[in-house]
This record gives sequence, C-alpha cells and structure tokens, in this order.
Amino acid sequence: MVRFMALYNAPEDPEAFDRYYDEVHIPLAKQLPGLIRFTVSRNITALGGAKYHLIAELDWESMESMQAAFASPIGAETAADVPKFASGGASTLIFEVAEV
Amino acid sequence: MVRFMALYNAPEDPEAFDRYYDEVHIPLAKQLPGLIRFTVSRNITALGGAKYHLIAELDWESMESMQAAFASPIGAETAADVPKFASGGASTLIFEVAEV
Repeated sequence: MVRFMALYNAPEDPEAFDRYYDEVHIPLAKQLPGLIRFTVSRNITALGGAKYHLIAELDWESMESMQAAFASPIGAETAADVPKFASGGASTLIFEVAEV
Repeated sequence: MVRFMALYNAPEDPEAFDRYYDEVHIPLAKQLPGLIRFTVSRNITALGGAKYHLIAELDWESMESMQAAFASPIGAETAADVPKFASGGASTLIFEVAEV
C-alpha cells in the first residue's frame, strides 16, 4: 500500500481552514481515482517536532495508481485547491506502508 | 483509533540503523500491550518538508490504551531502546485517526 501524507502547518484562521477543508477539500479529494482510504487527524500532539494543524493520509494500492490519480483532472483540481486554504503551508510525504 | 508516529531523521550509519531496527526494535515494540497495528515505511519521498529515513506508525484503539502501553515495562524498555539506534534523532506525533 502507498500512502500520501499531507501535514498542514497552523493556518492564519483555523476555523476558516477547517470549514473549507470539510466542505470543499474533502469532497473533492474523495473523488481521486483509486483512493482506498482517506483519514484526517486533528488535535495533534507533537513531541520534539513541528506542530501541525491537520494531517491527512490518503492510501492507494500501488505507486502507479497514486500517480494516475494525481495525473487525472480531479488530481489537478485537488492540488490547485490547496493554496485556497493552506495559509500556513504544508509538507507532504509519500511512502510505502508495510505491516510488521 | 489513535496513532503514534515516529519520524526518524537520517542516521549516521543507515545500514546499522536498519539492522538494529529490524532485529531488536521491532520485536520489542511489537510486545507493547494493546497494539493493534504496526507499520514501517522506508524509501520516503518528501515534497517541501524534512527528509526522513524511516516512519513507524503504531495504532491503538484509544488514547487510554496507548498511554497504558507507554506506562508498561515494555513501554519503558521500548523508549529506552530508541537512543541506541536513532543517531539522527526523531520526531514523534500522536493523533486520532478518523476516516472521512
């Protein structure tokens, strides 16, 4: 399984961020082709690292299906939506997930 | 579900890190009481953020069960094991995971 993780820094207006994220960004990102799981985390406790406002994790079966999703029209629309709410910036990580 | 995420920075000796992590740290951490899932990710691609050598995600049913695991003898032993291999340091995040 391949995971795309977006770590959003604290935005200027957290309430506006949350409202936009819930009402616009989630419904848009849920249309990404091949997406098998989408989780959102808030109230994040950081020990020895950056403080994030929200962490989103989106899972696909393979790197190929994730890349196809990002290359799709919905992928382009989802990426273009991020600057509309992520006023504090964000980091993203992509990695394979293996259960041990 | 509650997730504990450890993000390990690049260590001085990646091969020694991987060997110790696989042979000692995973078998130890798998004994944490109440642990429902433990995944390990390598070959991480970072876009606009820190570069990590390895990301571990450990899931529990609730914050209470995670805290009980960390307060247990195995929890103390697992925490004390980290400085033995994480020569590059690590950050940790704790957050609730909600599927959307």
